[in-house]
Amino acid sequence: MISRSEVQSAAQRIRPHCHITPIMTSASIDQLAGCKVYFKCDHLQKAGAFKSRGAVNAVFSCSQEEIRYGVCTHSSGNHGAALARAARLRQVPAFIVVPQAANPLKMEAIEQYGGQLVICDNSLEARSSKLEEIRLQTRAREIPPYDDPLIIAGQGTAALELIDQVADLDSILVPVGGGGLLAGAVLAANSAIKVYGAEPDQADDAHRSFHTGTRVLSHQPNTLCDGLLTTLGELNFEIISDGAEDILLVSETQIIESMEFIWRYLKQLVEPSSAVVLAAIITHRDLFTGQKIGVVLTGGNVDYRNLPFTAPPD
Amino acid sequence: MISRSEVQSAAQRIRPHCHITPIMTSASIDQLAGCKVYFKCDHLQKAGAFKSRGAVNAVFSCSQEEIRYGVCTHSSGNHGAALARAARLRQVPAFIVVPQAANPLKMEAIEQYGGQLVICDNSLEARSSKLEEIRLQTRAREIPPYDDPLIIAGQGTAALELIDQVADLDSILVPVGGGGLLAGAVLAANSAIKVYGAEPDQADDAHRSFHTGTRVLSHQPNTLCDGLLTTLGELNFEIISDGAEDILLVSETQIIESMEFIWRYLKQLVEPSSAVVLAAIITHRDLFTGQKIGVVLTGGNVDYRNLPFTAPPD
Repeated sequence: MISRSEVQSAAQRIRPHCHITPIMTSASIDQLAGCKVYFKCDHLQKAGAFKSRGAVNAVFSCSQEEIRYGVCTHSSGNHGAALARAARLRQVPAFIVVPQAANPLKMEAIEQYGGQLVICDNSLEARSSKLEEIRLQTRAREIPPYDDPLIIAGQGTAALELIDQVADLDSILVPVGGGGLLAGAVLAANSAIKVYGAEPDQADDAHRSFHTGTRVLSHQPNTLCDGLLTTLGELNFEIISDGAEDILLVSETQIIESMEFIWRYLKQLVEPSSAVVLAAIITHRDLFTGQKIGVVLTGGNVDYRNLPFTAPPD
Repeated sequence: MISRSEVQSAAQRIRPHCHITPIMTSASIDQLAGCKVYFKCDHLQKAGAFKSRGAVNAVFSCSQEEIRYGVCTHSSGNHGAALARAARLRQVPAFIVVPQAANPLKMEAIEQYGGQLVICDNSLEARSSKLEEIRLQTRAREIPPYDDPLIIAGQGTAALELIDQVADLDSILVPVGGGGLLAGAVLAANSAIKVYGAEPDQADDAHRSFHTGTRVLSHQPNTLCDGLLTTLGELNFEIISDGAEDILLVSETQIIESMEFIWRYLKQLVEPSSAVVLAAIITHRDLFTGQKIGVVLTGGNVDYRNLPFTAPPD
């Protein structure tokens, strides 16, 4: 089992290649939420998402020999762009398997960082089999998106910084997809601060896994949160079961409303996956009333040409 | 004539009530622009725009006696919200005359800060006559949106901070509507740094005024930049004629493209009026190649339910 010290090592390893992202607050949001919310702005991280932390940690933990044929992964977007960037820093190729329904802006970002896009069908099964094909063909080293100790430790640095930047937090809340960030936050908090996951109720595998004690391995997600479509990883599930407080569910309506609050009051362009944390605070407000809560805004790669906001009536 | 020392006094006066806003940069934008661009984030200012600087400076320069019946103004939005907020800090009412075509989010913001909305027709003439009516009726003190030494000095504090935050700037570029920010920047720079205005070519009164030496008093603007519809103020024109380097024109297409660059690369929700500065750098790139340029992102009160971005073809 990995621990807080792996997260601390990751923080040192990624320092030259990742930002220490700022914290933002809004009096209007605090009033809406009934507590003090500290937004850790990882949508301002390199490549526009916290995923750069794990990707850089994993890639820079490899010897040049280990990645001489490059790296590969499957991703709905942000891990792919982060891995393409990390590979470019090491001057090796990156092969990124992306489902065809992925956000087009995220695909553009992967190519912009020099990654080679490989489009596949949308199911998790199709992603896995296409990745296996690419891996055998290129001999590139697989860098998984979440189910990996180096990725978990890397993502945990976001929570480590947050704890360092805001004194006396009562709780930390992060979105949960594959569980890299949530597992990393559990390790970083090390039982000193309560750590919650937030998940769309239309993609509730982590909630069900957490409450039944058995990891849900496949589901049919139906959510705007394109970063939260995957099921929990094995190691992630282990760490989360052991140390997370709960996985809180939120509706799509509440996600869109919370995204609008963040846009309007913080003026920050975050993607729907980032908005689940504020949605969870508002939906489950009794849990948090009067607290100091740290949340991670995970990514800013929103397709602003295709937004969920409804035009007001004329 | 006012000078840099009035801007310095304004900086002290507004300190308790306004943010010192951060500077952001983007390697991708620098590459696009061919120079180093330092974005002064006044869309993160109180009430979401630099206008809070001038409004607070003007309102806090008044005695309680002078504003006992409140304050009033006409505004397409940001000055109105800023004035409503400043009035609330002094616990007096604010009457804000707003053209009916104004951005609905800006109207909501005025009401949120406790301002009383008075809707009028869209012409500058209609705004002026409605304001005069309100002023006589309420005896509220008029706080003009730009043509006023206290407003100009207040807006100039954005440039004063920018110069303090970024060493060795070659040029400063700000949007020009009524000319409060541009005149303030000219005073703050005090001939040590070149100061340019940027203006939509569909609202080019400042450009024409600057180049003919005669202030254009009425025009028919046709631009997305709802913050840049007014003509130059008299005092503003005097200061700008005396000290600005040039007023650079940009097309609507370039404004939309630059707004998209700022959204995509800075992840900052800025309104179209803010994007004219980057548009000017890109349109007139030979002027700025290799320079260090400070620009002010003036506001973030964009109507995100009604965006100019075109959906990509399916």
